[in-house]
Amino acid sequence: MPFISNKGFAMPESPIRKLVPYAESALSAGTEVIHLNIGQPDIETPEVALNAIQNFNQKVIEYSHSAGFDSYRKGLAKYYRTHNIDVDHNDIIVTNGGSEAILFGMMTCFNPEDEVIVPEPFYANYNAFALEAGVILRPVTTYLKDSYALPPIEDFRELINDRTRGIMICNPGNPTGYLYNAEELDTLRKIVLANDLFLIADEVYREFCYDDKEHISVLSLEGLENHAIVVDSVSKRYSMCGARVGALISKNTEVMATALKFAQARLSPPTLGQVAGEAALNTSQQYFDDVKEEYLKRRDILVDGLNSIDGVTCPKPGGAFYAMAELPVDSAENFCQWILDSYSYKGSTVMMAPAAGFYASPDLGVREVRLAYVLETEKLEKAIEVLRHALEEYPKTLEAQKSFFTA
Amino acid sequence: MPFISNKGFAMPESPIRKLVPYAESALSAGTEVIHLNIGQPDIETPEVALNAIQNFNQKVIEYSHSAGFDSYRKGLAKYYRTHNIDVDHNDIIVTNGGSEAILFGMMTCFNPEDEVIVPEPFYANYNAFALEAGVILRPVTTYLKDSYALPPIEDFRELINDRTRGIMICNPGNPTGYLYNAEELDTLRKIVLANDLFLIADEVYREFCYDDKEHISVLSLEGLENHAIVVDSVSKRYSMCGARVGALISKNTEVMATALKFAQARLSPPTLGQVAGEAALNTSQQYFDDVKEEYLKRRDILVDGLNSIDGVTCPKPGGAFYAMAELPVDSAENFCQWILDSYSYKGSTVMMAPAAGFYASPDLGVREVRLAYVLETEKLEKAIEVLRHALEEYPKTLEAQKSFFTA
Repeated sequence: MPFISNKGFAMPESPIRKLVPYAESALSAGTEVIHLNIGQPDIETPEVALNAIQNFNQKVIEYSHSAGFDSYRKGLAKYYRTHNIDVDHNDIIVTNGGSEAILFGMMTCFNPEDEVIVPEPFYANYNAFALEAGVILRPVTTYLKDSYALPPIEDFRELINDRTRGIMICNPGNPTGYLYNAEELDTLRKIVLANDLFLIADEVYREFCYDDKEHISVLSLEGLENHAIVVDSVSKRYSMCGARVGALISKNTEVMATALKFAQARLSPPTLGQVAGEAALNTSQQYFDDVKEEYLKRRDILVDGLNSIDGVTCPKPGGAFYAMAELPVDSAENFCQWILDSYSYKGSTVMMAPAAGFYASPDLGVREVRLAYVLETEKLEKAIEVLRHALEEYPKTLEAQKSFFTA
Repeated sequence: MPFISNKGFAMPESPIRKLVPYAESALSAGTEVIHLNIGQPDIETPEVALNAIQNFNQKVIEYSHSAGFDSYRKGLAKYYRTHNIDVDHNDIIVTNGGSEAILFGMMTCFNPEDEVIVPEPFYANYNAFALEAGVILRPVTTYLKDSYALPPIEDFRELINDRTRGIMICNPGNPTGYLYNAEELDTLRKIVLANDLFLIADEVYREFCYDDKEHISVLSLEGLENHAIVVDSVSKRYSMCGARVGALISKNTEVMATALKFAQARLSPPTLGQVAGEAALNTSQQYFDDVKEEYLKRRDILVDGLNSIDGVTCPKPGGAFYAMAELPVDSAENFCQWILDSYSYKGSTVMMAPAAGFYASPDLGVREVRLAYVLETEKLEKAIEVLRHALEEYPKTLEAQKSFFTA
C-alpha cells in the first residue's frame, strides 16, 4: 500500500473537529447543544441574493471567466470604492471563498521555506494553507490582557530575518474580534516598507465593526500599492457562507497576473455563487444596520455574561463576531470535552472552540476558548447560564475524580 | 517592490490563453469566431437541476459539511454503484470541481520532487496542479498514428525510478478522446501493483463513450482498493461546468482521511452547485441517450470532415468530446494565430487549441490541434469549410511573405 504525503500527514485537523463526536453523543442523549464553536451565522441571506438564485433562468450553468464575471468584478470595485478602497475590476480576482484567496495569495507571493509573520492567535486554517504552500508561519504573540492589540514594533523586528517575505493579518480578527486602529496599521506599514514585505490582510469581517470604530483596509495605506493584498469573502458580509465566493484584491499588477494563472488552472469560481454575490451588491444599508445592531446586542450579552461569571475574563471585541475568553480551568480542551460529554444544565450544553489550536506557539491559549456570537440572544443567554453552572460543577467533578483515584 | 514566488513565475499560462487577443480582434472586426478551442458544451443542463436551483428556498445559504452534503454523497455512491463502481458515501469527498479533486489527490499522495507518470498529450492543467503540489510529471508519449493508445508496458518501466509514486490518466482522454480498453487498464494495474504506486484517474468524461465501447473505472480493477483514486465532476456529465462540483473517490481510507483535512481547510464545496448536482442525479436516461447521440453525430461530422481535408489526419476518438488533428502546417500555433488574425471565410473563422501545450516533452505536437465538438452540427460543418479553405490559402500567404522578405 503506497504511503500518503508528508504534507498530508502534517496537515492539521480542525481544532474543533475532535469535539464533534462528543457533541454528537450529547445530541443523541437528548441534550440540546448550543453551538458557539463555529462562525455559521443564523442571520438571513439578503433577499436580493436569494431572489437572484430563484430567478436564475439560463439554460446552461456555464463556466465564468477565471477571474469571475466581468460585471460582478465591476460591481465589486464600486463597492470597495464606497469603502475608501480605490481599486478597479482588474485589481480583483473572484475566488472559491476567502479560503482560495488565501491560498492564491500565499502561492503567488511566497516560496517554500519563506517566512510569514502572523499575530497569534490566528484563524487556524492559515496553518493549513501555509503548509500547502510550504510557507513557514512565524507567530508574534498578542495577549488577552491587552485585548489582543498588536504588539510593539520590536516584537516584529525580532522575528525578521532574510527569509521573511510577508506579514499576514486578519482585521477585524478571527478568533479575537480585535480591530486594528490607524496607529497599529501605520506600524505595519512601516515594517512592510522597511523590509519590502507583502502584507496580506484577511478583511472578511470588514462590515462588523462596533462602538463607532472604523475599519481601515491595508489597500488604503499610503505607499503600499505593491505590497498590500486583501482577502475578502461574501460569506460573512451577506451571511452566505455556502456561496463559496471570495476575492483576492491588489494593485500590484504582477501579483494579479500571477494569481490569475492559478485561477485559470482551476477554470472558474462558482457561477451560482457569483449570481448571488452580484445580486447581493444591491443589499440595502438597512440590512447592514440591522445585522450590525443584532450582532452588537449579541456581543454585549455574551461578553457581559461571560465577565459576570467568577474567574472568567473576556475582553470586549471591536469587530467580527467572535470573542476569546479565559476560563478558570487548567485545560480548556478538557473542559470543552467534559461539558459536552458529561454535563448539561436544564437539558442544554455548550460547544466551544478550545483556543490552543489558534496559537502556533506551544502552551499558549490552553485556558482560552473562542466563542462565536452568531446565535439569537435567547440562546446566548441560555449558554451563559449553562457555562456559569458548569464552571461551578467542574472543580467538584475533578475533586471527585481525584479522590476516586487516590482512594 | 517584493518579488512574486518562483512557483507563480513558473506557473504555465493556459495554452489557449495567448490566442484570446486574436479572437477578440477578429470579433471586433465583425468576424464570427467558431470556438472549437474549449470544452464548454452548449448542451442544456438537465431541467431537474435547473428547477432545484429555482426552487432553492432556504433562508440562509449555509456551509455544507467539508466533504459535501451527506445526502448528496449517498446519492453519488448509488450512482457509482449503478456504474459498477462499488463505493459508499464515505469513499467520496465533494470538491470545487474536478480541479480541486486533482489538487487534493496530488497533495495527499505525493511529496515535492516525487514523480508521477502521465501519458502525453494530457490535460494542460495537470502541469499547473503538479507545480502547485511540487510534483514532477514524467510523460510517457502516445502518438497520433496509434490513435493515442497506451504505449507498451516497457515505456512505463523505463520511466520508473525510486522517486516514482504514481501514474495519472484521463479516461476517456482530454485532449485525445481516447478510451482505454480492458487490456490497457490491466497493464496499468500490473505496473501499479508491482511498484506500489497510486493510480489517479480523471474520469469526468465517463458518460461519453461511443461505438458501443464501455468505460472501465480504475475503481473496478481488482486489487487496487488502496491504489486507485478517481477524479470526477458534474461539469461535463450534466453540462454544468459552472456549478464547480466534483469529487475525489477512493477506497483507501487513509487517502480519504487525509484529503478530508485539505477539504476542511477550505471549509466546504459550493452549496448551490451541490443542490444542482444532487438534483441532477435524477436526470433521466433519455437525457444521456440524447446527449450521447448528439455528440456522436458531432464527432462524426467533425472527424470525417477533417479527414476529408487534404493533408489533415484525425483519428476517431472513442470517448469524451475532443479530437486531435494533425494539420499540414509547420506550426499549428502560428496557423491558429493566423486564422484568427488574418483570415475569414464567408465572414467566419475558427479558434482551435494548439496541441503543443498538451505535451510535456518539447517539440511534440507542434503540428497538432485539439478541437472540442461541443457546438451544434451546423457550426461544425461551417468550421470544416473555413478550415478547408484556410489550409489552401495559408501556404500562399507564407509564400507571399517569403517573397516579400527576399524581395
